[in-house]
Amino acid sequence: MKNKITSRSEDYSKWYNDIVSEAGLAESSDVRGCMVIKPYGFSIWELMKAELDKKFKETGHENAYFPLFVPKSLFEAEEKNAEGFAKECAVVTHYRLKNDPNKKGKLIVDPESKLEEELIVRPTSEAIIWKTYKKWIQSYRDLPILINQWANVVRWEMRTRLFLRTSEFLWQEGHTAHASKEEAVDETKLINDIYSDFAENFMAMPVIKGYKSESERFAGAEETLCIEALMQDGKALQAGTSHFLGQNFAKAFDVKYADKTGKLDYVWATSWGVSTRLMGALIMSHSDDTGLVLPPLLAPIQVIIIPLFKPKENVDEIEGKTTEIFQLLKSSGIRAKIDDRENVSLGFKLNDSEIKGIPMRIIIGQKEIDDDKFDVFFRHSLKKKSSDFNSLFELFSSSINSIQNEMISQSKLRLKKNTHEVDSYDKFKELISSQSGFIIAGWDGTNETEEAIKKETKATIRCIPELTDPQGINCIYSGKPARYKVIFSKSY
Amino acid sequence: MKNKITSRSEDYSKWYNDIVSEAGLAESSDVRGCMVIKPYGFSIWELMKAELDKKFKETGHENAYFPLFVPKSLFEAEEKNAEGFAKECAVVTHYRLKNDPNKKGKLIVDPESKLEEELIVRPTSEAIIWKTYKKWIQSYRDLPILINQWANVVRWEMRTRLFLRTSEFLWQEGHTAHASKEEAVDETKLINDIYSDFAENFMAMPVIKGYKSESERFAGAEETLCIEALMQDGKALQAGTSHFLGQNFAKAFDVKYADKTGKLDYVWATSWGVSTRLMGALIMSHSDDTGLVLPPLLAPIQVIIIPLFKPKENVDEIEGKTTEIFQLLKSSGIRAKIDDRENVSLGFKLNDSEIKGIPMRIIIGQKEIDDDKFDVFFRHSLKKKSSDFNSLFELFSSSINSIQNEMISQSKLRLKKNTHEVDSYDKFKELISSQSGFIIAGWDGTNETEEAIKKETKATIRCIPELTDPQGINCIYSGKPARYKVIFSKSY
Repeated sequence: MKNKITSRSEDYSKWYNDIVSEAGLAESSDVRGCMVIKPYGFSIWELMKAELDKKFKETGHENAYFPLFVPKSLFEAEEKNAEGFAKECAVVTHYRLKNDPNKKGKLIVDPESKLEEELIVRPTSEAIIWKTYKKWIQSYRDLPILINQWANVVRWEMRTRLFLRTSEFLWQEGHTAHASKEEAVDETKLINDIYSDFAENFMAMPVIKGYKSESERFAGAEETLCIEALMQDGKALQAGTSHFLGQNFAKAFDVKYADKTGKLDYVWATSWGVSTRLMGALIMSHSDDTGLVLPPLLAPIQVIIIPLFKPKENVDEIEGKTTEIFQLLKSSGIRAKIDDRENVSLGFKLNDSEIKGIPMRIIIGQKEIDDDKFDVFFRHSLKKKSSDFNSLFELFSSSINSIQNEMISQSKLRLKKNTHEVDSYDKFKELISSQSGFIIAGWDGTNETEEAIKKETKATIRCIPELTDPQGINCIYSGKPARYKVIFSKSY
Repeated sequence: MKNKITSRSEDYSKWYNDIVSEAGLAESSDVRGCMVIKPYGFSIWELMKAELDKKFKETGHENAYFPLFVPKSLFEAEEKNAEGFAKECAVVTHYRLKNDPNKKGKLIVDPESKLEEELIVRPTSEAIIWKTYKKWIQSYRDLPILINQWANVVRWEMRTRLFLRTSEFLWQEGHTAHASKEEAVDETKLINDIYSDFAENFMAMPVIKGYKSESERFAGAEETLCIEALMQDGKALQAGTSHFLGQNFAKAFDVKYADKTGKLDYVWATSWGVSTRLMGALIMSHSDDTGLVLPPLLAPIQVIIIPLFKPKENVDEIEGKTTEIFQLLKSSGIRAKIDDRENVSLGFKLNDSEIKGIPMRIIIGQKEIDDDKFDVFFRHSLKKKSSDFNSLFELFSSSINSIQNEMISQSKLRLKKNTHEVDSYDKFKELISSQSGFIIAGWDGTNETEEAIKKETKATIRCIPELTDPQGINCIYSGKPARYKVIFSKSY
């Protein structure tokens, strides 16, 4: 059984592609830059969705659905937002095809079906949503509006990578409306905390929270909060963003509310989102040269049970034990599966479960039953623990949490080991060019410095963890007093 | 508290629109033919989705995701399918906007971003999916493929109605691939049965199952199974379809599999879907002149609890009882909500709960507590039952099923009362022009007869319940021996 995964040291980028492909997560489609999310990959995304959706609802948010298309005149209403996305918009210009008079069986766009106004396939939905909110909001009684939408969006990308950057992707986008700036700011933080908790506790991927610098902010936002994760190759990955939009969209769409005294003011807004990009982050956080590694809480199959039948053995007994442990696991909510495929070898099954990152595996054969000794294989550590049959359920059950916690600890350790504070540009450059990782350093707060560092080292400001003056620290680049301590890194 | 709902007898169509609007289910958007599904409407759709998704997964189907766009050359590969949808396709022709040189702050489509090949926004996904399946299928070992996708699709409609017919709608589309015709045919039936069970038991909307006549078949299908429901105005609504696609798509995309002997054959296919149209069916099946009526199993709020505080009363006691019953309901999985809004009157709350179709309602005030007599109001019957506090939970709990069953019985009765068998065209015309409903009649199986009846009466063949010769029955129109007994109706 030859492992088809390229090793990380050989070619990190190919390693990633191999895992996405061999684990059956996604593949490229015939549509430029768009992916097919395969069933196994999609089932991981479904687990992510379910948990995030629960967290949103617990904090008072409701789901709704807004149109896929945005008329151009609405799209351009908030100028900064429009400018930010204009260069990557798929545009619908016609609404009908007709038979090609010159080629039988072929179709052409019917020129008579040209739309009076072009429709933009949503790259994000602020425009269409705020146009709708205008109808919904008259008074403070109509606020807050706390809405989320699970949807597909399209941003035309020239260089794409499965999950990490695709022209169409799936995401959730929250869009909230508030009667005060403070409430909107609090919402932005609440959501960024939800993202951070989810990343750490479910994805086992600790993140650094912070604010984006002006140049990295969402187009149309006053402030962008984000969570930044660190991949195994030392590059950062922006895993979620939560934007305080001020009154920009309310002004663009003239959305005002009357307060208790009847005074009119523009409504305050936030928007926030995570996408199928999280799949890329999950893959790159934990996987190894054997294949995918999944934290149990996001594993579609947490335990794979492989019955092993050899000639002249007691098939009924093996099947009985297999079913017994499967039922026990299932009835207590553990996602278990029996791999009883007849047309593939044991070696194939073992390899398959490892490539797919199934957290725990057990083989049930005559020898194991006779010896009352069963080996549970743990994917994250590649180690085994033995157990008698009666203790098996307890071992599986307790290991869900212990594996999850071990993976969180490992990731935290990696994050810590790869986060360095520097006080000189020389050290900065040395680190960035060798191991990369997160580099904490003083920044004078200017665009010029940010640009220069980016140009010279390819590192960008991933986030500003605290918007406070770091007393007595200088900017590593300009030597001037630092305005903030920030996190630099190369990034995806 | 004035009820804003037009009565059914006054204007059935306006009644429907009023309910969609006043119950907060959906509204038109600024995009022609596209709707905004509002939070309350979307939460009903989420309950539908969850139940259907469970049924699909229980029968071995997995979810996946395929691209929104279909390149024109793929779209036209299966000619009948392409022909069927060509006239309602939104077409993406460009991928970039740029600043309008003549108008500051405005954008125009960048002519330099014209796509070499136009992209069709999927009206259905057979083409893109079968192009993908070609990569996945080599041998019988790769079959069956049982995949479902929850997605948005676009079919450019000239005349739209919220939920019933919109240019963009949400749906699920199953696409399966099989090694034998028989297996594919069985799959088609299995799914149509799932749809029928869901409609009857969850939507409390009994349906008639059957086959579509050739003229009503899905473009590209060999056979279309469907479920047909009957609305309160006597018109039919096609609520779900399940298509046996034969080898049409396999041939269009050259998808062959090797059987156990190595012999190559084209793969057999099915596709099937239900959409947000079900929301329209649900609304029109049960609602009355007071507002929406929801079967408890699809009600986002099953019990609304309204605490009633009057001056000088014991607020703590009222709040205590309110919380106690709420917690009891919640902990046993009943979807309950406390309506403790301070800025609206009791009358408003009562009206609101009725318009929204919340199945059960209770007011908890000092009088109710002192008398230990609580009235539970049932939305579907507009009747009340009294209970002491200790029996309240039991009443709510048992009523979930009893309301559901009553609604199913009522709907079955309505279906029965409005289904008539006729043996002459005169009786047929009389029925169709007066009360409509489902009319069972003999049909000679010809397109001409079907067309003539449609032209003269606006009634179409909704389905053919059994593909068997109805021995000794004549066609109501031509008088020739009937090929099938079929169901005629006017329809949505």
